[in-house]
Amino acid sequence: MTHKIAILGASGYTGAELIRLLAGHPAYEIVALGAHSKAGQRMADVFPHLRHLDLLALTRFDEIDFAQIDLCFCALPHKTSQEVIRNLPKELKIVDLSADFRLRDPAAYETWYGNPHGAVEVQGEAVYGLTEFYRDEIAKARLVAGTGCNAATGQFALRPLIEAGVIDLDEIILDLKCGVSGAGRSLKENLLHAELSEGYNAYAVGGTHRHLGEFDQEFSKIAGREVKVQFTPHLIPANRGILATVYVKGDAQLIHSTFENRYAAEPFLQVLPMGETPSTHHVRGSNFCHIGVAPDRIEGRAIIVAALDNLTKGSSGQALQNANLMLGEEETSGLMAVPVFP
Amino acid sequence: MTHKIAILGASGYTGAELIRLLAGHPAYEIVALGAHSKAGQRMADVFPHLRHLDLLALTRFDEIDFAQIDLCFCALPHKTSQEVIRNLPKELKIVDLSADFRLRDPAAYETWYGNPHGAVEVQGEAVYGLTEFYRDEIAKARLVAGTGCNAATGQFALRPLIEAGVIDLDEIILDLKCGVSGAGRSLKENLLHAELSEGYNAYAVGGTHRHLGEFDQEFSKIAGREVKVQFTPHLIPANRGILATVYVKGDAQLIHSTFENRYAAEPFLQVLPMGETPSTHHVRGSNFCHIGVAPDRIEGRAIIVAALDNLTKGSSGQALQNANLMLGEEETSGLMAVPVFP
Amino acid sequence: MTHKIAILGASGYTGAELIRLLAGHPAYEIVALGAHSKAGQRMADVFPHLRHLDLLALTRFDEIDFAQIDLCFCALPHKTSQEVIRNLPKELKIVDLSADFRLRDPAAYETWYGNPHGAVEVQGEAVYGLTEFYRDEIAKARLVAGTGCNAATGQFALRPLIEAGVIDLDEIILDLKCGVSGAGRSLKENLLHAELSEGYNAYAVGGTHRHLGEFDQEFSKIAGREVKVQFTPHLIPANRGILATVYVKGDAQLIHSTFENRYAAEPFLQVLPMGETPSTHHVRGSNFCHIGVAPDRIEGRAIIVAALDNLTKGSSGQALQNANLMLGEEETSGLMAVPVFP
Amino acid sequence: MTHKIAILGASGYTGAELIRLLAGHPAYEIVALGAHSKAGQRMADVFPHLRHLDLLALTRFDEIDFAQIDLCFCALPHKTSQEVIRNLPKELKIVDLSADFRLRDPAAYETWYGNPHGAVEVQGEAVYGLTEFYRDEIAKARLVAGTGCNAATGQFALRPLIEAGVIDLDEIILDLKCGVSGAGRSLKENLLHAELSEGYNAYAVGGTHRHLGEFDQEFSKIAGREVKVQFTPHLIPANRGILATVYVKGDAQLIHSTFENRYAAEPFLQVLPMGETPSTHHVRGSNFCHIGVAPDRIEGRAIIVAALDNLTKGSSGQALQNANLMLGEEETSGLMAVPVFP
Repeated sequence: MTHKIAILGASGYTGAELIRLLAGHPAYEIVALGAHSKAGQRMADVFPHLRHLDLLALTRFDEIDFAQIDLCFCALPHKTSQEVIRNLPKELKIVDLSADFRLRDPAAYETWYGNPHGAVEVQGEAVYGLTEFYRDEIAKARLVAGTGCNAATGQFALRPLIEAGVIDLDEIILDLKCGVSGAGRSLKENLLHAELSEGYNAYAVGGTHRHLGEFDQEFSKIAGREVKVQFTPHLIPANRGILATVYVKGDAQLIHSTFENRYAAEPFLQVLPMGETPSTHHVRGSNFCHIGVAPDRIEGRAIIVAALDNLTKGSSGQALQNANLMLGEEETSGLMAVPVFP
Repeated sequence: MTHKIAILGASGYTGAELIRLLAGHPAYEIVALGAHSKAGQRMADVFPHLRHLDLLALTRFDEIDFAQIDLCFCALPHKTSQEVIRNLPKELKIVDLSADFRLRDPAAYETWYGNPHGAVEVQGEAVYGLTEFYRDEIAKARLVAGTGCNAATGQFALRPLIEAGVIDLDEIILDLKCGVSGAGRSLKENLLHAELSEGYNAYAVGGTHRHLGEFDQEFSKIAGREVKVQFTPHLIPANRGILATVYVKGDAQLIHSTFENRYAAEPFLQVLPMGETPSTHHVRGSNFCHIGVAPDRIEGRAIIVAALDNLTKGSSGQALQNANLMLGEEETSGLMAVPVFP
Repeated sequence: MTHKIAILGASGYTGAELIRLLAGHPAYEIVALGAHSKAGQRMADVFPHLRHLDLLALTRFDEIDFAQIDLCFCALPHKTSQEVIRNLPKELKIVDLSADFRLRDPAAYETWYGNPHGAVEVQGEAVYGLTEFYRDEIAKARLVAGTGCNAATGQFALRPLIEAGVIDLDEIILDLKCGVSGAGRSLKENLLHAELSEGYNAYAVGGTHRHLGEFDQEFSKIAGREVKVQFTPHLIPANRGILATVYVKGDAQLIHSTFENRYAAEPFLQVLPMGETPSTHHVRGSNFCHIGVAPDRIEGRAIIVAALDNLTKGSSGQALQNANLMLGEEETSGLMAVPVFP
Repeated sequence: MTHKIAILGASGYTGAELIRLLAGHPAYEIVALGAHSKAGQRMADVFPHLRHLDLLALTRFDEIDFAQIDLCFCALPHKTSQEVIRNLPKELKIVDLSADFRLRDPAAYETWYGNPHGAVEVQGEAVYGLTEFYRDEIAKARLVAGTGCNAATGQFALRPLIEAGVIDLDEIILDLKCGVSGAGRSLKENLLHAELSEGYNAYAVGGTHRHLGEFDQEFSKIAGREVKVQFTPHLIPANRGILATVYVKGDAQLIHSTFENRYAAEPFLQVLPMGETPSTHHVRGSNFCHIGVAPDRIEGRAIIVAALDNLTKGSSGQALQNANLMLGEEETSGLMAVPVFP
């Protein structure tokens, strides 16, 4: 059976990545590509790498007949997404890739995003989209809120440890290194090649990055108490990839076996042998996340390193994985492509 | 039906690319991975991006039972390849990715490669592996000689024009820009990141690059007279991609329609609208080749620009395309993955 | 004696490069930094790499007292430059880095730039700023028009040959590979890191790039007849550097000795030994241009390769070299810094 | 007065960087360039970016007349350096850039480097080369041991805080991001462009990097007790640059004012305004180190970020700064070049 798919926000990087992944999926047919600012343009002009696909031209959202759609991916900017989704048919299955429905508490949303939530009534329906930890809820959900790419990486590196109670909850530091595509196809000076290539820097230093809202919500929920982590992202001159270096207090061997047990049946979460740590090179373009653990020379401390591709496992691949669950398809369908190296 | 596949030279980039492509192919099973210098090692250590695949360890060639193999890819260095292939079973289907069997004339081989050919008796069987131009011969071949990656790019940009007689055969200049993976996983100073990043240079200037042997052989054969082109490759700080800028004398409109006619039914060769030219960004990790044509301001001159991924369409993708033909599979099987952008 | 210097357009890359070079010059003092759109900002915020210099804040142009200025660099966008310069004091020494005063013929200007020239009366005073070929005129000039960076590279690779009559004037092809900083600090989608890194493409294909106006003007003037070259620029994923690969018909040995003779006394133009060709890696951040020559395998043809840094020798370094001449300083003063490698 | 300088190890990156810096120094003359493995070669072939300098050919060390040398830079690999230096004249002033004389305790040396020290008698003379903290000793020293580049960065970010007692000594984490040139011009697979570009990874995870020996020695000495930090370096796809993100427990405002006070008179150590953090882009090719401080959202915690160029301030620039002190020249002489951006 073929499911009919719409993508809103098809002119951005996560939209293009969805198309890339869906093109290899046997059960889905893209029947609408929405992109307000580029409506009317051909995808071959907006994304020439999709030239060979027989894609529809981009359209305005109001030109789409949502009645014929089985599932809609919303790859829109934050805030736009909630405005659009509140006006979509109430029974339409939606996977949202924006930040708009990740935080269950509207007050937390307002704190981190600076404006009141504009679709609180829809928020209640949303399931948090970290597939490996919300699988059953996602399968039954109408609206799934895709996680932040940094938030996904950090949670893969920490959730099993918090669940298992094997680390000190007050001493968690996440130092993330992020490729530039996570910032989207936006015309900002610091994203120019000349500004970024051959150098790197921290940003949102001191706990101001919005993905902290997700860490706070999820880690506190698991722990049953407030958990606040330190989190510093860095912008690295590479297009794809997130590398999380996580400093914790706990026993490295126990941490490693906790990962091995928890992720043993997970097709996309690969735990490396004890002492080995991953590289973003080896997950590029794929839905895999590689996770490694090493003990520190200081007893009782360990370092966890997790690597994934922000556009795939961190965003559009996760979205497709969730859509597969929502539509009753094999969870891994369309997602097993091998990373592209070199 | 599942065909049993061996790869010799599995520890190099073209070997790894073959594994990446074969992993997504429904009809092939990899039953042997040969790599002399790294025999005994696990692929997860040699290429961590293949970690999740359930691959065999690397073996010495003499440990492989070729009787059970349906087709063998040889991704070995030049000269090694001929020594190995001459000792393989005479009925074994082989796709060779090295330069060893590309030149039909042993004297030409010796001129370009500096040593006498060591397997002249096998050379006679070899079919030149440029799929779109040798499709029927390849389907019947036992031994297919994969083309050079530069040679493939240049031929896609020129063969239809020489066939159709629409350009001046004495005034052809190919200026190629090549990513670094074409040089393989070799420990050479000029391939270090610190030497290559943020700069670029010509090499083999003046007509000394070995792929000229292929241009000479093929273009002269088509034209029925000697054709010698000028060819200057350049090393660009990028991992994948070849961009050929070809300067010819001829009518741009006629050239463009010649491409459109010749490539109309070709799934991988995409002719851009008149006046548009391609970018290597948009073919990365894929088996597509994008080709564009523009008239020069000087009447009677045109520029052709062709882009492909050297490891895929220029090498391992081509090899798989040829194997599909040799084994009676759909030619495009395992090869339709969308380019990875950004 | 200290000369007082103003820079208009100090918030762009050529402006910043001027400041970098002037900071090491013993005889110049920067007394005004103009930048309309960022007026009021501190240079440490606009260009943090200049943080340690005790620079003035950016100002509007009308806040500058030009009466106290000995020489003004105009690093403004095309078209803006002519509007500003026509209103500057008539006796003020100016080095303009824009395209506005490069073409002596207003009709040619209008053809290439698409609008009538807005300061024809000033154009008459302008001397073309290719230092090594207009040294005496520059020393006496009030207004010097800096050359295009591509135009400089191409002329270094061709002027001596046209002067000496050693190449066929109707068969000249310039294939240029350009780093991204040549496009300036402008918010364009194709200049984003995610769009540019790891790929490359031709642009302005077919003879539409504006720097052709300079080639036409200069080469025809030298030759005493119309000379039209083919010129295709390519955008390469690197921040600095232009590599010109020039295809000519002529004797390589004669071409090489022509360069050696013509450039023997030039401090910045380095002719490589016969058969060697340069790399942009080795001129980065410097005012040097490396030039090499190789014969093609086809008799009577040669390839010339020239490399320079577009921001230094191709723009701001050239501008300082000209200013040195105009103010009676040593021509090389402030310009002998060694290239930064790796 | 002109001092006569020798460089041993002139064919490596730190050797080339020394030549680059010395070329702009008014008081030094390079009279010998030693490089055993490339003895006899011209520098223009080994490092074409030095082509325009009138440099001597590379020589074997035993061909150098050290009696005429005022100061010798040793830019040799670890272990080789101690073997060479023990045989140099006992009164020769030496700045060593290797790791061989950094650790005062031979046992600590053996622990971190895996072999007994081969020149213990010389070790006693060595002064640790972190200029801003050993200025007086360096001025009087015969042998100065240049610091590790990571070690320098980490110390600039921590020494004043340990001196002032404003942070918790048991809770210091250094997460470093390092460009590739720090690994030298060595033929290793992981340093190839194809392996490194577009990805990044941690290495020496868990406290096994040798520069920890320096941190342990220096921090413990300042604190008067054992101080052990956590330190994880990461390899980033860029040629130059180290970014240290340092997590500490202490008051951010107090930390910031401690830096401002301590570094107020330091020409190369630039403290950013409170809350701002630096980028490696803005120190490239220069001897500057930029340092920023931000409070974390968790009270009592702060993040310090320091950026420098590993080849300049982290190695050869530091070496020249020390040589200036040892020879009675102005400390900043030859070192004030502005960073190269973009």
